[in-house]
Amino acid sequence: MPKLIKNIETRLIDELENMIFTGGSELTLRALAERAGIAVGTIYNYFPDKDDLLKALFQREWSNLITEIVKELDSAEVSRNDQIRKIVGMIYELSEQVGRTLPQRKTLLGGCKEKGAFRLPSYPHRPEGWLWLREAFRPIWNRVFPDSNIDVDRLTIMVVSIVPRLIFLFPEQGEENMQFITQLIQRGTKEYGATDGR
Amino acid sequence: MPKLIKNIETRLIDELENMIFTGGSELTLRALAERAGIAVGTIYNYFPDKDDLLKALFQREWSNLITEIVKELDSAEVSRNDQIRKIVGMIYELSEQVGRTLPQRKTLLGGCKEKGAFRLPSYPHRPEGWLWLREAFRPIWNRVFPDSNIDVDRLTIMVVSIVPRLIFLFPEQGEENMQFITQLIQRGTKEYGATDGR
Repeated sequence: MPKLIKNIETRLIDELENMIFTGGSELTLRALAERAGIAVGTIYNYFPDKDDLLKALFQREWSNLITEIVKELDSAEVSRNDQIRKIVGMIYELSEQVGRTLPQRKTLLGGCKEKGAFRLPSYPHRPEGWLWLREAFRPIWNRVFPDSNIDVDRLTIMVVSIVPRLIFLFPEQGEENMQFITQLIQRGTKEYGATDGR
Repeated sequence: MPKLIKNIETRLIDELENMIFTGGSELTLRALAERAGIAVGTIYNYFPDKDDLLKALFQREWSNLITEIVKELDSAEVSRNDQIRKIVGMIYELSEQVGRTLPQRKTLLGGCKEKGAFRLPSYPHRPEGWLWLREAFRPIWNRVFPDSNIDVDRLTIMVVSIVPRLIFLFPEQGEENMQFITQLIQRGTKEYGATDGR
């Protein structure tokens, strides 16, 4: 059993995030290890698979977003429609960020030359990612729709599926993309019995 | 310029469809050529890229679906809500079919061993596929929402994105998946000014 250095996971994900967002040097495990000040082989003690690194980054990014959303919901009394707009807007922003930095993320995964693969910013690319998101968003929707019978689990899947796809297909039409999703949810959930207005 | 045999494209797509749906023999270009009664090299005169074969199959499958939907809309006077349910149901059925036969489709593309790639039935995997679908569905939605200002282009993207994803994530919950999508569209488009009822 190799000795595990405390907080090395956090340090690795910090550095991974830095490398993804600052660009510059090529995103390899070797470069990542160098920046984190460890041997490249040590990474495998913490993240046996490159995919696990991306998974940890994914969870951090979405956990941060969810924390922000909860803070936002706590900070002001706004109407249900405004809450929906806010939440969709924040998901949109993160998805744009992920989309912009997708080349770096792909570099890390590397190795897949097959045409079509990874063309779409379909992230997360594993079912566990979707199911993790579903759990993470459940308390948020339950707050927005306190007395509703809307299927909040499928609502999460819908939003986090459609947002990156619209960004990918219509990157210059952020306003229209946002408006479509927001209105669909605002109207689509209305008759489920949720309290509307302030 | 090699001599092009008439209808060979159609014959190839016919055989491709047969092979995908009957399973059995491994789906290789060699096997496909044999069944179509041509030399394997000849395929490249018609479909320079394996991806082009799948694209042609994709367009045939969705064109057939759209023809069926139009027939359905012509055949009876039903309420807008019933039309929506019908259309979503038919998209659901085709998506399930594609999902079930995804292993065969992947075999044809082959070569990509990278973890995570092609895990999801994200089909079509190229933006042209999405934009083609958008055009194909526009007249249908314009019929269902004749005086509506709903963004039918984004509606298409939404439906054909979310259906396969829900099937993938919750394969045993067809009823719930269908109901979620149907209700979201029925309610979400209601206030856009579409005529409701018969």
